Amino acid sequence: MMNAMSDPTLPAEFALIARHFRPLAGPGALDLGDDAALLLPPPGRELVLTVDAMIGGVHFLPDDPPDLVGRKLLRVNLSDLAAKGATPLGYLMTVAAPRDTPDDWFAGFAAGLAQDQHAFAVSLLGGDTTSTPGPIALSLTIIGHVAPGTMVRRAGARPGDGVWVTGTIGDGALGLAVAQGRLADPTGHLHRRYLLPQPRVGLAITGVASAGMDVSDGLVQDLGHLCRAGGLAATIDAALLPLSPPARQAGADWLPTILTGGDDYELLLAVAPDQEAALRRAAAAAGIPVTRIGGFRAGPLGVMVHGPDGKTLAFDRGGWSHF
Amino acid sequence: MMNAMSDPTLPAEFALIARHFRPLAGPGALDLGDDAALLLPPPGRELVLTVDAMIGGVHFLPDDPPDLVGRKLLRVNLSDLAAKGATPLGYLMTVAAPRDTPDDWFAGFAAGLAQDQHAFAVSLLGGDTTSTPGPIALSLTIIGHVAPGTMVRRAGARPGDGVWVTGTIGDGALGLAVAQGRLADPTGHLHRRYLLPQPRVGLAITGVASAGMDVSDGLVQDLGHLCRAGGLAATIDAALLPLSPPARQAGADWLPTILTGGDDYELLLAVAPDQEAALRRAAAAAGIPVTRIGGFRAGPLGVMVHGPDGKTLAFDRGGWSHF
Repeated sequence: MMNAMSDPTLPAEFALIARHFRPLAGPGALDLGDDAALLLPPPGRELVLTVDAMIGGVHFLPDDPPDLVGRKLLRVNLSDLAAKGATPLGYLMTVAAPRDTPDDWFAGFAAGLAQDQHAFAVSLLGGDTTSTPGPIALSLTIIGHVAPGTMVRRAGARPGDGVWVTGTIGDGALGLAVAQGRLADPTGHLHRRYLLPQPRVGLAITGVASAGMDVSDGLVQDLGHLCRAGGLAATIDAALLPLSPPARQAGADWLPTILTGGDDYELLLAVAPDQEAALRRAAAAAGIPVTRIGGFRAGPLGVMVHGPDGKTLAFDRGGWSHF
Repeated sequence: MMNAMSDPTLPAEFALIARHFRPLAGPGALDLGDDAALLLPPPGRELVLTVDAMIGGVHFLPDDPPDLVGRKLLRVNLSDLAAKGATPLGYLMTVAAPRDTPDDWFAGFAAGLAQDQHAFAVSLLGGDTTSTPGPIALSLTIIGHVAPGTMVRRAGARPGDGVWVTGTIGDGALGLAVAQGRLADPTGHLHRRYLLPQPRVGLAITGVASAGMDVSDGLVQDLGHLCRAGGLAATIDAALLPLSPPARQAGADWLPTILTGGDDYELLLAVAPDQEAALRRAAAAAGIPVTRIGGFRAGPLGVMVHGPDGKTLAFDRGGWSHF
């Protein structure tokens, strides 16, 4: 565990933790001065736990601003909680970094976390820092809570439910193409969306969505997860996809990237017709756009995409895999 | 989060998770088939959370058997819970590995985890797998529980309390020297202790120890943490250190390594004189040796070590630091 003693005779590791990470510590973190954190669970609530890693050169680029790396690390985990209808409580984090990582990097990383902790009402419970001969390797475990038995699961979609998404789809994957010099981005919108996703915390989907997850590995692949978990088929209509103006301007050649690229961190929900009004009310209350892009039906497991010309699109890969 | 769909058309990442990690999934893990795990906290209990990372080339060597890497990863975290008097519940884990990591490595790693899950009555709640261009990077967040307000903390030692340790000290650091070819180890005991620490789960220290932690970064440095947290000085007598026969045979030249080397994963406890009998009863019940090696006293913060010749030992570093 992180340990932030302030004694100047202690090794540099402790000074680093005290300087950058102790200001992030919330109730139960014991000022990062013990070996473990304490959490008194909210009475009568069930905990929802998830973990996501980010590796330099895989999930972020070496030159990405460190504050945005910190914010993205927290946000991708907040996005998972949002997709489950859970309220965030706190997080634990591992930071493995090369010994020559400049202090400025840690300062920026922690400043980004501090900013988003405040924005999303969550705090650091504990962590571990270590050196590594490889790239920066980050891991964040987040804890949230729901009323028992109400977590929105991948399983639960029924034939006739609509396929809904929040926000716009494809900006993250196009933003990566921008960062790699493969696409122009005059307004910077796509690159910003890649660097800093917007977790849809606050959208009240419990009891409204029959199933849900966030889109992190590509819309088609992630929709496939909902289909498999529910034993269903799904069809989406590419013409209904909510696209940002820069994504629309990118043109039809980028549609496969938009559908399969990932890094959206928008919510993908199954919503029964009699819950659509409730979803629209929740969306209006949270200020989060929602769009129906297709529907679930009985049939062989799988995802079909009707292209803008009415033809069915086929993909050689549904999304992103690490192995 | 880890996600273990069994569809053969899914990418290799999912097959890997299904093959190796789904068998580790416990209640609440939803078969690693969702984006988050569920945990209904034991009613009326406070949660204790800690996280530790292990990096290839830093915390373990590339040739270490993967089952022992898995077991050590779980055990160093169980050791933290044991030092806090907490009962383990479950864990979440990140596994970042190079793309060419052989399937055998994952199989061995998971087999080691399975073995120790059974031994320590704990199960996998969730995780994340990813590729990395660097060495294998592991992070494990473990969750335990205590009666509210009873966690054994670093703070709490009082003047007159004894300094106690479990087991034997120094084997882990000497075992690393063995692995590095700097020390002979005819029986293999030291190397085994380095590869596979023994977390002292089951020693009932709640209400018995006034303060405690596990020895991971070196006895002198970690005792210094208890001193700083309690505003005290401590003296230990090197002649009282519990040493394994191979550690004793290594000779006096290795005493600094024994005192500062770390990787012991034994408990370091402050125990008031009127609690010594209770500690001995708890130790006998758990079958875990305990030894008084010194005492806490009022005075300038810090740790003094009386050497075997009665002289005071000085150290240029109290333990291990990553930065």
